[in-house]
Amino acid sequence: MQTSPRLTHEEAERLDAHWRALVYLAACQLYLRDNPLLGQPLRPEHIKPRLLGHWGTCPGLGLVYTHLNRLIRNRRLEALCVWGPGHGAPAVLAGSWLEGTYGELFPDVPRDADGMTRLFRAFSTPGGVPSHTAPGVPGSIQEGGELGYSLAHAYGAAMDNPGLLVCCVIGDGEAETGPLATSWHADKFLDPVHDGAVLPVLHLNGYKIANPTVLARIPEEELDALMRGYGYDPVHVTAAPDSDRLEVHAAMAAAFDSAADRIGALQRAARAETGADRPRWPMIVLRTPKGWTGPASVDGVPVEDTWRAHQIPIAGVREDRERLRQLEGWLRSYGPEELFDDSGRPLPHVLDCVPAGDLRLGALPQANGGRLLRDLPLPALEPHAVDPERPGASMHEPTRVLGGWLGELMSATHERRDFRMFGPDETASNHLDDVYGATPKGWQARTRPTDEHLGPHGRVLEALSEHLCQGWLEGYVLTGRHGLFASYEAFAHIVDSMASQHIKWVHSAREVPWRLPISALNYLLTSHAWRQDHNGFSHQDPGFVDHVLNKSPEVVRVYLPPDANTLLCVADHVLRTRDTVNVVVAGKQECFDWLGLEEARAHCDRGVGIWEWAGTETYGEEPDVVLACAGDVPTQEVMAAASLLRAHVPELAVRVVNVVDLARLLPHQEHPHGMRDADFDGVFTRDRPVVFAYHGYPWLIHRLAYRRAVHPHLHVRGYKESGSTTTPFDMVVRNDLDRYRLVMDVLDRVPGLAVRAAGVRQAMADVRSRHHAWILEHGTDLSEVAGWRWEE
Amino acid sequence: MQTSPRLTHEEAERLDAHWRALVYLAACQLYLRDNPLLGQPLRPEHIKPRLLGHWGTCPGLGLVYTHLNRLIRNRRLEALCVWGPGHGAPAVLAGSWLEGTYGELFPDVPRDADGMTRLFRAFSTPGGVPSHTAPGVPGSIQEGGELGYSLAHAYGAAMDNPGLLVCCVIGDGEAETGPLATSWHADKFLDPVHDGAVLPVLHLNGYKIANPTVLARIPEEELDALMRGYGYDPVHVTAAPDSDRLEVHAAMAAAFDSAADRIGALQRAARAETGADRPRWPMIVLRTPKGWTGPASVDGVPVEDTWRAHQIPIAGVREDRERLRQLEGWLRSYGPEELFDDSGRPLPHVLDCVPAGDLRLGALPQANGGRLLRDLPLPALEPHAVDPERPGASMHEPTRVLGGWLGELMSATHERRDFRMFGPDETASNHLDDVYGATPKGWQARTRPTDEHLGPHGRVLEALSEHLCQGWLEGYVLTGRHGLFASYEAFAHIVDSMASQHIKWVHSAREVPWRLPISALNYLLTSHAWRQDHNGFSHQDPGFVDHVLNKSPEVVRVYLPPDANTLLCVADHVLRTRDTVNVVVAGKQECFDWLGLEEARAHCDRGVGIWEWAGTETYGEEPDVVLACAGDVPTQEVMAAASLLRAHVPELAVRVVNVVDLARLLPHQEHPHGMRDADFDGVFTRDRPVVFAYHGYPWLIHRLAYRRAVHPHLHVRGYKESGSTTTPFDMVVRNDLDRYRLVMDVLDRVPGLAVRAAGVRQAMADVRSRHHAWILEHGTDLSEVAGWRWEE
Repeated sequence: MQTSPRLTHEEAERLDAHWRALVYLAACQLYLRDNPLLGQPLRPEHIKPRLLGHWGTCPGLGLVYTHLNRLIRNRRLEALCVWGPGHGAPAVLAGSWLEGTYGELFPDVPRDADGMTRLFRAFSTPGGVPSHTAPGVPGSIQEGGELGYSLAHAYGAAMDNPGLLVCCVIGDGEAETGPLATSWHADKFLDPVHDGAVLPVLHLNGYKIANPTVLARIPEEELDALMRGYGYDPVHVTAAPDSDRLEVHAAMAAAFDSAADRIGALQRAARAETGADRPRWPMIVLRTPKGWTGPASVDGVPVEDTWRAHQIPIAGVREDRERLRQLEGWLRSYGPEELFDDSGRPLPHVLDCVPAGDLRLGALPQANGGRLLRDLPLPALEPHAVDPERPGASMHEPTRVLGGWLGELMSATHERRDFRMFGPDETASNHLDDVYGATPKGWQARTRPTDEHLGPHGRVLEALSEHLCQGWLEGYVLTGRHGLFASYEAFAHIVDSMASQHIKWVHSAREVPWRLPISALNYLLTSHAWRQDHNGFSHQDPGFVDHVLNKSPEVVRVYLPPDANTLLCVADHVLRTRDTVNVVVAGKQECFDWLGLEEARAHCDRGVGIWEWAGTETYGEEPDVVLACAGDVPTQEVMAAASLLRAHVPELAVRVVNVVDLARLLPHQEHPHGMRDADFDGVFTRDRPVVFAYHGYPWLIHRLAYRRAVHPHLHVRGYKESGSTTTPFDMVVRNDLDRYRLVMDVLDRVPGLAVRAAGVRQAMADVRSRHHAWILEHGTDLSEVAGWRWEE
Repeated sequence: MQTSPRLTHEEAERLDAHWRALVYLAACQLYLRDNPLLGQPLRPEHIKPRLLGHWGTCPGLGLVYTHLNRLIRNRRLEALCVWGPGHGAPAVLAGSWLEGTYGELFPDVPRDADGMTRLFRAFSTPGGVPSHTAPGVPGSIQEGGELGYSLAHAYGAAMDNPGLLVCCVIGDGEAETGPLATSWHADKFLDPVHDGAVLPVLHLNGYKIANPTVLARIPEEELDALMRGYGYDPVHVTAAPDSDRLEVHAAMAAAFDSAADRIGALQRAARAETGADRPRWPMIVLRTPKGWTGPASVDGVPVEDTWRAHQIPIAGVREDRERLRQLEGWLRSYGPEELFDDSGRPLPHVLDCVPAGDLRLGALPQANGGRLLRDLPLPALEPHAVDPERPGASMHEPTRVLGGWLGELMSATHERRDFRMFGPDETASNHLDDVYGATPKGWQARTRPTDEHLGPHGRVLEALSEHLCQGWLEGYVLTGRHGLFASYEAFAHIVDSMASQHIKWVHSAREVPWRLPISALNYLLTSHAWRQDHNGFSHQDPGFVDHVLNKSPEVVRVYLPPDANTLLCVADHVLRTRDTVNVVVAGKQECFDWLGLEEARAHCDRGVGIWEWAGTETYGEEPDVVLACAGDVPTQEVMAAASLLRAHVPELAVRVVNVVDLARLLPHQEHPHGMRDADFDGVFTRDRPVVFAYHGYPWLIHRLAYRRAVHPHLHVRGYKESGSTTTPFDMVVRNDLDRYRLVMDVLDRVPGLAVRAAGVRQAMADVRSRHHAWILEHGTDLSEVAGWRWEE
């Protein structure tokens, strides 16, 4: 496949000059606060007071940076690089400083000796530059602090970017993680026609922090079989401590050339519809010594090519003259005087491989996704909205209604291809399958005649890996597109940590002036805790909301639409938001329609609202009690409780409140959506009993509302970790969220009422017991709760 | 390698009889509430009112059950099976009912027609048996509700069980998950001398819920390469819808025989020290049609061998005569009259393959780990305890002190081999490396001369996968041993969902009378949010505690020891607990020694204590203010704040409270460790200002304490998602947890004090500003905070 000629000696030398400049700048970031060109002998005062950073991976990352530059320049390729070992940021920062993008984005760090000093000083310093490839690093789309997600990000970035090559450097540490191990299989989901290519570079430097790595210590033929088993065609490039570096450059250039040739051929074949089978994409296995070209040993102990090269290879240089001398010798070994002029500008031969303009790795628009982001052509809601004659008069499956609208959105983006849905084999199970009318499920592996809704160009992706779904979506939105991840509610916890890291990324990116806003990362959590009739306890966990609400309030939003129309309104809203992470919790089972579309719009705009028509209060007077709810099942139970109270205790003034936007409960100074106290008190009162039926863990409501005046009177019911394979109504009874319990809660809390309404209380307790006996006997809910209809 | 003769026709027929009986019983669990032997024509009233369950995987699981029985019986093997597709519980329940264990453990479900009826009725019914291989299923050690962990569990179960064969059925859906994908690499950590064997059976039935699976749709040679790349030697067994089933039995028996032969040979070689290289363990690729032998089609739509066989293959049988007849025909196709006598007892030939006694899969002691559990020989704490002359007079790294004690525990269990430590390449980074003095890190792959602390028989396992560490530990403790998982605090979120599932397992297992208590699953979270000087924001997340505190209070415990001696006491305690999940959060950096060993013991016994020596209150009088703390860094800052207050506002009566056991803050009716109100009020007062410095997200303390009388006066400081690569003191300043801010908080909250102490307030603000300027200039903390010593 290789069509490019072998590197000339001169070309190799120029590439080596770039690489040496990059590695020099990386090493200096760890050590120097002054004397950037080593114009003077190195003295203790030139050394930073605290030495923090990771050296080991930098030389290898630098090699990839240099050779990607060459490839991009030679072929005028659009290429993005995902740096899995993000703690090798010094190498990436050095590359972007050399190519000029760093100084353009941060004008106080120009491409000269002053800029060099600032670059060195800022690295891993308070108020400076974080030590990973964080949002402030040009060209970065992932921090690489937590490991495991680089390859999924790379695939997400490549989707619907047919002209893009996404190189992905995978450290052999990261390669041991589960998410990375399954991400290799993303090749069965990459459309060679509409998607770009992913070129994985498995960078084996042999060690993690303190241990050898698995993939570096298995025989090469085993590793080769593994990569072929994952569906790739591996090319091996190996550098040893004593390798002739120009030979390494030749091998690396040949590997990149042959990979690019192969990718081009596969894409041409697929796009000309001559591709016979699923493409076997190339990948590169790059072996370099950890801390390559760094100190071979320090005080007689081996460092290069051992785990000791992971962080600072020579410590205590400020205090120890011998070590200072060793550091100086090491840094001078790169020949800074041959690489930079006296004012610190890189010499022309150093920059020979560097591409120009937006093709530079640090300047690529796709790596600053907001530059490319376009608003979605969101369909009108009206044709999809349900039209209840009166509240509770009809029922719909909210996610099915949403699925129709999403299908139209899929159609509307057919040409643009900038909206995708991801889910772990659950799109149909979550009742969203109407989207298949507009686009199939993307699938590149074999098919059988009985398959349905599969197609090579589909924009719904379903792999049974929440990590892959989340990673794909992150890569997709970070590069300027839109999407939705629909998951079983309980299993969103699988990506807790990924969600944290993405929220941290967005939080930090908001503070980087040249990063433009990206679209929201949207979760639809359905098949929720209350309706796991088949699956029971293991599938019941509403705590993802608790997890994200610990994170940056500027970024995080949580919505619990109570019916189909409110879900449509919330979906329409979240797909317009930027630099946020939205969690939408909604049921897939039949649910009462409470609001018409216009009422739903108004309700979602407010986020919290009094449903006057459901209560019995008198306008202008404080109610006796507030019945509040958030979530579809709690809303149903609260509406039923209100109805029971109206029937049994008609003199009681009941206010019914529904909460869609959970962050409204927070103080306004703690969250952009938080209500001011006066508004909150206007809805919930300052001193009336509030019985709150919440979808998730009840104490979350206390955590949100503890500063409010009414808090001492707030009583919350919710999921309290009680469940099994059982009926829907048994679930609410087990967790004391059922209508009868809510009525009892009200009776217990309104002064004087418990005694007066003892008969009602007993009636409520009786029906609960009767229900319990019934389901044990019949295995189904009592018809009076299963077939219950809410009536005004 | 195969040494066993080919199955005779008669043997195959007897195996098929067992398999048919098992599959019949599985299918009936989904459908029947009566007429278990089909003695009468099937009528609607024999059918359950709600049809819930998963059929598709049952025939394949049944095939494994049958052939494992044969293997165990023929070889008198101790074998455990981990059923990855746990939603195939009907097959496993059927297997254990057939072998007699079910009826022994649940005497109301005997091995006759009555028991059969009860078995069918209970399945997936309210108050009955959950639909997955939950703790109530004999022989199960994992529920398989959330997918991904079966193979890690299997490896954990095999460790230090040299005589045990752990078969692990991996569904092709589960195989797509990240945790499973990396679990294959556990073969590089399995000691062939001291550990048992794991025999993975990759069960390809081709479909997930609604999609084909990746591994079933790649060419067989690709799959074969993948398995070889993972280090295994695969054997392929394939059944198609039209296969001669006796041929399938012959192939399956041969595959199991050859695998067992191969395992035996590898173990003998390793144990005789003649094994040359890392063993290539066998594994089986088993292809069966989804819903094999179920209805080929329903209403003209294909079902067998498609995704439609996933759950109930024929729905609506109660209502539709035609479908009822089809169901009856299908069930009769197994020939129940040839399998059971008139009273419902299995006929002798059906049970021919079933092993006896404790060797039955449902009776194996290892699958009910409490049966084998022995108390650990915990070393005395005294030789490891630090001995501070007075509080705060010395400093130690708490985890290093703990590491010495754990090393002694490793030595004490050298022969027993029932204690292990797991960590993602962080044992040394977490300053626990003294354990290497007692045992190396287990490692079976290649080594190099520069490696340290690696050994084939080590009991510290370090793979860069939190999923693998957690899964191994779960498998290890579920089978009756003890262990500890030490992780960077932030990355514990990677296993949030696994922790949830394990807690749910323990919660449910407590309700199963024959399950004996197992040892705790212990987390040590270190390298915590406050000391991520190198790594910054991505490594800062104290929310794992919030996550677990949403779960069953009977199971969950959280400890925040403030110094080395309290960490020792907590570790000693948690390793004695049973049926719990303990989270211990402790720092690895130098930390003041506050308590001598005896004081530490007393403090940890109480869980919460007033540190009289640190405060200025007068005995018998209420203090003016309570300064409370939980966690090592908050304790340091509170002690410094108390010292500043003593110096600057000596007339103020300050009480200092330290919380080790976080659940003490909960009401006693909500958690077994919760304090009664009177006790709580005695410590925190009912109405004095409480300034609480907490290690994690501050609102967690509100969520725990919102019911307490003092709650309106409670002010909490903690980590509020502000961080970067910066200095230790800058971290506490950024998050308003620093001593100066705490002093200001006190001044602001004690009535009248703010005005009186305006000068002090200003002094506090000044030093904060001065610190800020200093670190921006120098990159290190001001010496007066970095070098600060707490003095009495």
